[in-house]
Amino acid sequence: MEKWLVGIDLGGTTIKVAFITLDGHIVEKWEIPTNISEYGKHIVSDIAQSIDAKLDQLSEKREKLAAIGMGAPGFIDMKTGFIYHAVNIGWRDYALKEELEKATGLSVTIDNDANIAAIGEMWRGAGDGEGNLLMVTLGTGVGGGIIVNGHIMHGTNGMAGEIGHITSIPEGGASCNCGKSGCIETIASATGIARIATEKAGEDPSSTLNEVLKNNGELKAKDVIEAAENGDQAAIDTLDSVTFHLGLVIANLSNSINPGKIVIGGGVSKAGHILMSRLEKEFKRFALPRVAEGATLTVATLGNDAGVIGGAWLAKHNI
Amino acid sequence: MEKWLVGIDLGGTTIKVAFITLDGHIVEKWEIPTNISEYGKHIVSDIAQSIDAKLDQLSEKREKLAAIGMGAPGFIDMKTGFIYHAVNIGWRDYALKEELEKATGLSVTIDNDANIAAIGEMWRGAGDGEGNLLMVTLGTGVGGGIIVNGHIMHGTNGMAGEIGHITSIPEGGASCNCGKSGCIETIASATGIARIATEKAGEDPSSTLNEVLKNNGELKAKDVIEAAENGDQAAIDTLDSVTFHLGLVIANLSNSINPGKIVIGGGVSKAGHILMSRLEKEFKRFALPRVAEGATLTVATLGNDAGVIGGAWLAKHNI
Repeated sequence: MEKWLVGIDLGGTTIKVAFITLDGHIVEKWEIPTNISEYGKHIVSDIAQSIDAKLDQLSEKREKLAAIGMGAPGFIDMKTGFIYHAVNIGWRDYALKEELEKATGLSVTIDNDANIAAIGEMWRGAGDGEGNLLMVTLGTGVGGGIIVNGHIMHGTNGMAGEIGHITSIPEGGASCNCGKSGCIETIASATGIARIATEKAGEDPSSTLNEVLKNNGELKAKDVIEAAENGDQAAIDTLDSVTFHLGLVIANLSNSINPGKIVIGGGVSKAGHILMSRLEKEFKRFALPRVAEGATLTVATLGNDAGVIGGAWLAKHNI
Repeated sequence: MEKWLVGIDLGGTTIKVAFITLDGHIVEKWEIPTNISEYGKHIVSDIAQSIDAKLDQLSEKREKLAAIGMGAPGFIDMKTGFIYHAVNIGWRDYALKEELEKATGLSVTIDNDANIAAIGEMWRGAGDGEGNLLMVTLGTGVGGGIIVNGHIMHGTNGMAGEIGHITSIPEGGASCNCGKSGCIETIASATGIARIATEKAGEDPSSTLNEVLKNNGELKAKDVIEAAENGDQAAIDTLDSVTFHLGLVIANLSNSINPGKIVIGGGVSKAGHILMSRLEKEFKRFALPRVAEGATLTVATLGNDAGVIGGAWLAKHNI
């Protein structure tokens, strides 16, 4: 009997779950809402019940499942699967691995949500099996994951891959949620792009972005990208500035970790060519020639499935 | 019979060789000149003869030796021990591992010279066994090595750890040997420190550095450090500027790779407190609090022995 892996990607509003074959193909995937009431105490039983219900629906037994791999937000001890603190979920000092193993009878491996997305892209996505990979996720914030020789890099206390807080503007940059200022997250996240474009539109009355601002009360990153595609100078200047800083960050990091693939994911990556062509130019400008030669810069391909697929990889490698 | 490991550190002018116990203690160390005549064709036989002569002198036989680990400069294929090009030695497309195995009858493992110094410091030096370590060597240039989970990080084509070419000044920085400009090597190397101090002294007629310049025709990094210790403002400004850039580079890299130890080596690290206290301040300013908490910044302790000890570690882990 060919077994299935269970990949789980826990977010603040939904939990993505999938049954996945040993070679990384999704058999079945679904979502359940994240019940954060009572400090998240129902989450584990919700997951276990949902897995059982899905097995019933597919006329399969618990024995069909080999193991669970799960991505969770917050500070995690990856070895023990212990969550120190997950702000959006409400967990504090929570033995997630142990509880989920008890509830499902399956072996569970936990990692950071950004890391499992990176390993998912390595295994079945844009990473194309390349074992040295840098994943950069441009969403509300800027996240990341680093894969070294096919394994997730954790660092000494689980902070490896947190590339959003690399300082791009050492003096006078915008304030960041982390308490510092000038982090790349304040520039290359959707929020950062909107902020910079709002500033640039303010200095340029001819920009079409001012119309959008007037109508919607705010700019979103996708408004900026759309305006840039239509030739709006303030929007183009915004993307030039964003890709200058992000290209420099990625090149500097690549000069040290020498990835074979650099995968750009998250909502902002949907901008496609107008973003990626500029990013590649700046990356090549600041990377050592041999480092640039070794690296392919590419857009993530798994979208919202990266997490569950990465979870399945975790499960597989810990059976 | 307790066997010995052979650590070899190949430089452009001397070859350092040592017999080292399995737990990393040096039994005997010596140097031979690097004979770069005839494209380095004598180097391997020089090493083999020198090892035999030393064994004779110690009344030991070849069987006493377990394996050889060697650091070499240039572009190396670490798996095959093949040297693509080592400018200072004269080798091009040279099968170093194979040749040295033939000449000595011992198993040989080759790695980059900066990497073996990093692993040496991890094993027996300032790294104190910490498996996630960043080594930064401040010499004529700026080199480095990254250790992840106790193993040397190589990256996709052997460039990992080349931190000297991280861009610190994206526009208008000094030209670098690599062809780019504004690399941290142009700022934090001995050469960079001397260059910046010469500029600053030129703007400040009261600086004592002008006297040194007049007497010696040039400044050296140690003149700058000495002047800073004596309160010379141009020298202090130089160290402030150097540590600002270097602290930012190290913090940015640490925000991504999350090392437990950051070891500063090379000639410039001998400056000690006046450099390290400034560097630590800038590092803490730009590192995420949890990253700074996890990392100890410290001066290398093995000096010139780091390479042979790292070589022995390589030999041990490949027996």
